[in-house]
Amino acid sequence: MENVEQILLPRWIIPVDDENSIHEDFGIAINAGRIVAVASKSELKARYCSDSVVELAEHAIIPGLVNAHTHASMTLFRGLADDLPMPVWLNEHIWPAEAKWVSREFVQAGTSLACAEMLRGGTTCFNDMYFFPDTVAEQSEACGIRACVGMIVIEFPTIWAKDPNEYIQKGLDLRSSLEKSTLVTTCFAPHAPYTVSDPTLTQIAELSSELNCQVHIHLHETAEEVERAVCESGIRPFERLNHLGLVNQRLMAVHMTQLKTHEIQNLAEHASHVIHCPESNLKLSSGSCPAGELVSHGVNIALGTDGASSNNDLDMLGEMRTASLFAKIVSESAESLDAYTALRMATLNGAKALNLDHEIGSIETGKSADVVALDLSHPATQPCYSPVSQIVYSMSRDQVSDVWVAGKRLVNEGALTTIDEQQSITVAQNWCNRISQS
Amino acid sequence: MENVEQILLPRWIIPVDDENSIHEDFGIAINAGRIVAVASKSELKARYCSDSVVELAEHAIIPGLVNAHTHASMTLFRGLADDLPMPVWLNEHIWPAEAKWVSREFVQAGTSLACAEMLRGGTTCFNDMYFFPDTVAEQSEACGIRACVGMIVIEFPTIWAKDPNEYIQKGLDLRSSLEKSTLVTTCFAPHAPYTVSDPTLTQIAELSSELNCQVHIHLHETAEEVERAVCESGIRPFERLNHLGLVNQRLMAVHMTQLKTHEIQNLAEHASHVIHCPESNLKLSSGSCPAGELVSHGVNIALGTDGASSNNDLDMLGEMRTASLFAKIVSESAESLDAYTALRMATLNGAKALNLDHEIGSIETGKSADVVALDLSHPATQPCYSPVSQIVYSMSRDQVSDVWVAGKRLVNEGALTTIDEQQSITVAQNWCNRISQS
Repeated sequence: MENVEQILLPRWIIPVDDENSIHEDFGIAINAGRIVAVASKSELKARYCSDSVVELAEHAIIPGLVNAHTHASMTLFRGLADDLPMPVWLNEHIWPAEAKWVSREFVQAGTSLACAEMLRGGTTCFNDMYFFPDTVAEQSEACGIRACVGMIVIEFPTIWAKDPNEYIQKGLDLRSSLEKSTLVTTCFAPHAPYTVSDPTLTQIAELSSELNCQVHIHLHETAEEVERAVCESGIRPFERLNHLGLVNQRLMAVHMTQLKTHEIQNLAEHASHVIHCPESNLKLSSGSCPAGELVSHGVNIALGTDGASSNNDLDMLGEMRTASLFAKIVSESAESLDAYTALRMATLNGAKALNLDHEIGSIETGKSADVVALDLSHPATQPCYSPVSQIVYSMSRDQVSDVWVAGKRLVNEGALTTIDEQQSITVAQNWCNRISQS
Repeated sequence: MENVEQILLPRWIIPVDDENSIHEDFGIAINAGRIVAVASKSELKARYCSDSVVELAEHAIIPGLVNAHTHASMTLFRGLADDLPMPVWLNEHIWPAEAKWVSREFVQAGTSLACAEMLRGGTTCFNDMYFFPDTVAEQSEACGIRACVGMIVIEFPTIWAKDPNEYIQKGLDLRSSLEKSTLVTTCFAPHAPYTVSDPTLTQIAELSSELNCQVHIHLHETAEEVERAVCESGIRPFERLNHLGLVNQRLMAVHMTQLKTHEIQNLAEHASHVIHCPESNLKLSSGSCPAGELVSHGVNIALGTDGASSNNDLDMLGEMRTASLFAKIVSESAESLDAYTALRMATLNGAKALNLDHEIGSIETGKSADVVALDLSHPATQPCYSPVSQIVYSMSRDQVSDVWVAGKRLVNEGALTTIDEQQSITVAQNWCNRISQS
């Protein structure tokens, strides 16, 4: 008998594999932060013992959810400006509010609240794009959540940097400082084609290749963005990025509501990744990413919530459901984006986009123990013909009972173990009071 | 000082009125099941006293949610057949399963589970269309939820009745038996234009007028339904109903994904009601009801979840969010169907459709005390610039803390007081096991 740190014994395990498996009466053995076995309960009990055996009789265990696009700090602007056209929302509300309020303390407060929300909702890894990414990294390390923090680059000056060189240098310094982190990685995060120049994008393309580092960028979010670019430069932003050497396996293209067939083929050929943010696209009426078509063309498509000011939550369970429902109407087929595909988008595909699929994204021996237990005993998820159907179409985030990242239990029966939730909320409320009164 | 049965003291009251009011630091006095005062806390405390004062410091109180279209018993088929085209789903899965399994016991079990789910999600009234409506009525009375049970009519024989005359007679008998009920009402529920003949619909139109009784019918759910009707009869189903005298202030037309401008005008002129079921329409890829356009034409539009086999839950908070998000993309305007409008659709508009707005649907002195307390202290609904935004765009059903129907507290700090939830689930699981193994 081998002694391990933890044994989890759920009703179901949904590993997220090519066979769309659902294992009933299986368990997971965890040691030194890693999954050391996934096997039937009887086999597991015969091979392993542990002081920590977690019985989860009504639960399904899934891989930790990967939120592949967010701006965590923007939780502090949640609900500040709703039901507005995107240009008004961005130019008249969000950008002025950011110019006025964003600081290191703001990012600290917003990230802390976001991590509380994400962990309680089963998200174990998030891909962030915001100012003060060093603070986002620190906050993530402190609470034990996994993160990829964006080395943000914008052509114009902000509180974080004065010009592209400083943005890039501060990003690279952060990257160096995180070399030994097991939880936090970095990627380049040029904001969008319309806010970053050709020379800067070229420099990012070269650095991305040299360092084998992903590039996270808003792209083709609205028809207006594409039309304006065509009007000004004669080419679509995606084509421009292609010319600049950015369309490759390191590209994480966020939104992509405007896509021609040859662009979809191009994405597939270059093994680029699309990050679909359905709720944000709907709320801002940005457009419809052809998620079903991308799947059928073999493009890796992951899911993100976007920031809380355009969603308005960081709930990946809800995002899966919306992605699946929305895809069915966009593709005019109820068969489009079935439940297991939605779950794969929210887990393994996110890990692939972040180039972290050797570590996370599925429940496999050898991978990090980033797993989530979901309690199916709520009347809304009963009776249960298929746990995957219940998870995608009926579950709410409060059914997340337990969350482990690298084997560490960050949510224990619904309660956060590494974040003082009430303190996070109080700090956020103080920010809200200041912002409201201004 | 007047003594009253209960005083509720929430942080906010959202009454759902024409001014889109949000009252901060107000309270509600309840006596004999009715709202006797809505006033500032100081005024309320000066005028009323009670042995039961409920402090809800972090909460908003809204009118009870009205699920204006469901088939409650179908919770027992939740997740039985997902990701399938509507004709396959209906003809090859749902109808055969109904033919095989539906019985009085099935309806009892399914309704009990549905009521548990609905009450815990803040739904205080539902409009049902299913077999054995007498059992649905009994179950509703037993747990204290408000319901409008459909006097179902289908042209062909089922376990409930052998021909249209029997369907109608059984419905009218049920209606008589419920005359004294304060919770359960009835309406005519001819299933759909394609399953009910002209003579039967004519008879229903006459009875509806005579008895001043609403008519609840699936209508223009898909483009195929309309095309087939035009092909077979030369006219669209809505036009046919108009000819038969059914388009008036008693019509509750469910789905309406296919609408021409003159039809929208016709609905507005006749003060007919549209019941929008966005999640069902998305999941079955049925089509897009032009919700924003209906609102701007002044049509009363309410919200329904449809049955749990095409949604897959009975969550009206989620349905509000989906309605608002979906409307923004359908109407290509982020301003379409703002948060307060979505809340009105889920409350007062549902009450109007059911001709119950003199009793329920808003928080007003004299109306029945059908109210719901929502706890905003979850990190996903913090900080709070506007409680209505948080309720529609960020809240999950588990934040429903307390529910009152006619002044009776049916959910107390998240727990059901009139339904044995575990028993309901166990019975539902037994049905699931039988159905799965067959």
